[in-house]
Amino acid sequence: MILASSRRSNLSQHIDFPVVLWSGQPSPRNFPANVYPFRANSHFLYFAGLSIPRAAIRLDRGKLELFVDDPAPGSVLWHGPEPTAAQWAEQMGADAYYPLAALAERAEDAATLPVQDWATRQQQMQCLGRSVSPLEGQDLELAKAVVELRLCHDELALSEIRQVVSVSVEAHLTGMKGTAKASTEAQVRSLIESVFIAHEMTPAYSSIVTVHGEILHHDRSAHPLTPGDLLLVDAGAETLGGWASDITRTWPVNGQFSPTQRAIYEVVLAAHDRCIAQVKPGQEYEEIHLEGALAMAEGLVDLGILIGNPETLVEQDAHALFFPHGIGHLLGLDVHDMEDLGDLAGYTQGRKRSDRFGLQFLRLNRPLQPGMVITIEPGFYQVPAILDNPQFRHQYDKLVQWEKLAQFKDVRGIRIEDDVLVTDQGAEILTAQLPTTPDQIEQVMIN
Amino acid sequence: MILASSRRSNLSQHIDFPVVLWSGQPSPRNFPANVYPFRANSHFLYFAGLSIPRAAIRLDRGKLELFVDDPAPGSVLWHGPEPTAAQWAEQMGADAYYPLAALAERAEDAATLPVQDWATRQQQMQCLGRSVSPLEGQDLELAKAVVELRLCHDELALSEIRQVVSVSVEAHLTGMKGTAKASTEAQVRSLIESVFIAHEMTPAYSSIVTVHGEILHHDRSAHPLTPGDLLLVDAGAETLGGWASDITRTWPVNGQFSPTQRAIYEVVLAAHDRCIAQVKPGQEYEEIHLEGALAMAEGLVDLGILIGNPETLVEQDAHALFFPHGIGHLLGLDVHDMEDLGDLAGYTQGRKRSDRFGLQFLRLNRPLQPGMVITIEPGFYQVPAILDNPQFRHQYDKLVQWEKLAQFKDVRGIRIEDDVLVTDQGAEILTAQLPTTPDQIEQVMIN
Repeated sequence: MILASSRRSNLSQHIDFPVVLWSGQPSPRNFPANVYPFRANSHFLYFAGLSIPRAAIRLDRGKLELFVDDPAPGSVLWHGPEPTAAQWAEQMGADAYYPLAALAERAEDAATLPVQDWATRQQQMQCLGRSVSPLEGQDLELAKAVVELRLCHDELALSEIRQVVSVSVEAHLTGMKGTAKASTEAQVRSLIESVFIAHEMTPAYSSIVTVHGEILHHDRSAHPLTPGDLLLVDAGAETLGGWASDITRTWPVNGQFSPTQRAIYEVVLAAHDRCIAQVKPGQEYEEIHLEGALAMAEGLVDLGILIGNPETLVEQDAHALFFPHGIGHLLGLDVHDMEDLGDLAGYTQGRKRSDRFGLQFLRLNRPLQPGMVITIEPGFYQVPAILDNPQFRHQYDKLVQWEKLAQFKDVRGIRIEDDVLVTDQGAEILTAQLPTTPDQIEQVMIN
Repeated sequence: MILASSRRSNLSQHIDFPVVLWSGQPSPRNFPANVYPFRANSHFLYFAGLSIPRAAIRLDRGKLELFVDDPAPGSVLWHGPEPTAAQWAEQMGADAYYPLAALAERAEDAATLPVQDWATRQQQMQCLGRSVSPLEGQDLELAKAVVELRLCHDELALSEIRQVVSVSVEAHLTGMKGTAKASTEAQVRSLIESVFIAHEMTPAYSSIVTVHGEILHHDRSAHPLTPGDLLLVDAGAETLGGWASDITRTWPVNGQFSPTQRAIYEVVLAAHDRCIAQVKPGQEYEEIHLEGALAMAEGLVDLGILIGNPETLVEQDAHALFFPHGIGHLLGLDVHDMEDLGDLAGYTQGRKRSDRFGLQFLRLNRPLQPGMVITIEPGFYQVPAILDNPQFRHQYDKLVQWEKLAQFKDVRGIRIEDDVLVTDQGAEILTAQLPTTPDQIEQVMIN
């Protein structure tokens, strides 16, 4: 609580106008009473420190007012004893609290940030008497101030992140060890997510557990596991307070990498290691991305898959034929932290997304600062939509040894993703307990 | 597909105007790209037979037109090859298909039913040029026709329900057998939901896995398991096509019911059995509820907890001190089937919710018909908000042996819930594979 209150006073260093942040409300699934698990708005969570549906906080010069109703009289039968407004206010360290209906008259001239659920967004607009999206004026100023604060994590945040990373590491290990007895993707997914659930956590995003790693956001798990397949697992838990992890490992279904799989894996791993070695305060993240691209190009040249000078290949975006996404992103209360604000958090003011094939999907383009948590996640994929694309095929025809590439057809997709804290000493790999090398992975899968 | 198409022609027997049904779209969680798992609208699922986001169908005299866009060009990198509009149309047996933008000019004068997600609901209103809620005019006629169809399940539906029930039974068994090694509610919940996930299913509703069964909709699982506790588990899976199950069992954490727990359990079980014995076509569901209430009253009189004549006690709603909810509800594509239409499905036209303490929460009040699937779920709870309520306490003071009740304090909540198909021969208990008696449960937990 003390730290969440220090976030409030930090905000008052950046802006001198009042702010109202809404928590949001559960979104209905197939009928109004059957809702998706409630996930409070991240900005609310950051400053309130508690997940409360149908609440709002007003922040003004470091003071917090909470707006929330007492539980409805009949609610106790169905939901048991729930905290009263007074109890929430005390837990939060609020300076005052009011019923939600009192918000309208206290919200005048306040800045806000839009929530995701539409019902609450209507309330925001009604209460403020104006639209809340796109961000402009004081809302935009507020967004920039919040980005400044949330970019670098305080101890309270880091403690939550370490906890959720530790559960996610355990989940990946459980998945690795259980793959030998599994016959479908869904069974491995079940092993992984069951670890989240056992710790009262949820997936921070739709888990990817697939033998078709070349489909970057494959969120179904419908395939059988066949010996010789690689299984790509991108899964991370989220705490009750909303803090996320994001981890990818790729392991062989039968516990042993084929020589071709191991060769490509080592290329991705070298890129991973070189990127992490570059992590330090002041380092431009785009440079890390380009270092990863260069490492990929070098490795693929060594394997005879790409032809030419690695630096030149990266300038030509030839690496992006096989590594078409960015090297990573911010991690925090959101798995792509603050992506609800567009590129405001990811990109230093004045910078814009590149339209280069090899840079367009880069989500982070800033100098690193101590306290940032980022992902490093190079990958190699054989995406038919890219490799069979006539335009790419024509453009890059002479730079790829297609016959050589054909020898690696048992490698559809490999990604290695770690969560990394930027410290004054360089990178602290928060996910370091998870096996990363082929030998380590095979060792875990044997036991 | 053949049966989903027969649903379309059945609809045309009931109404003679065109209908447009939207599938809905994924609801954002904490930022637009991080969405909750997509759940298509149940009415769309019923007539389309397929879960497709951002689609609509137009039904007119048994013909189906599908409105959906081909995958966006860049989508294949992130989501892999997805069906085209033509492929969806073929799978669905559509008579024609168009891009979504063509819907506006084909929707004129069509009736519809509102979806749950707000973004799509805005589209519905925009496209039809009118509000879609509350239901009135042709929309209300459509809703009544859909209720007629969906009340009694066809073979395609029953086959999905049998499948999801079978997975849910396996999940409960896994939870029962694993409780001995679990030390928290969350660990048992993890065992149960992991079975759903391994079968590519999701929870049909927030699972209740709690030692505080007296909180009817307790959807957190934060308590430790203590020997002597009863664990109440209300959990059911949902298929990819949206069909739901809904099962409750209550078992002792240490594998053995105490004498007081067993005594109350037998009372609830007797109520359960007597209700199921009454299930047959033509039977009024409210009568089943009252039979359950009577069985509870008789059992509690026998135990010396209630005092008086059981019939009179039920008339006085004294049973509802311990059994405050309804005996069950419709089950189908929704866990409370068609509850998005209010009480239109649950209550025969002209009937309204009672305001009696013992009847107000009854969700179903219709004569049963062959092909209906219903739940039967009597329960006993010691809810402090009821038993300590001064008004109730005064009203029922002479009907309860409070000292006797105090001997049963290790029974906070017991519920037994089965899914039952109404057949011409009476009840078919779809969940019959799951242990129900105390002896059966103890036997499963020993092994």
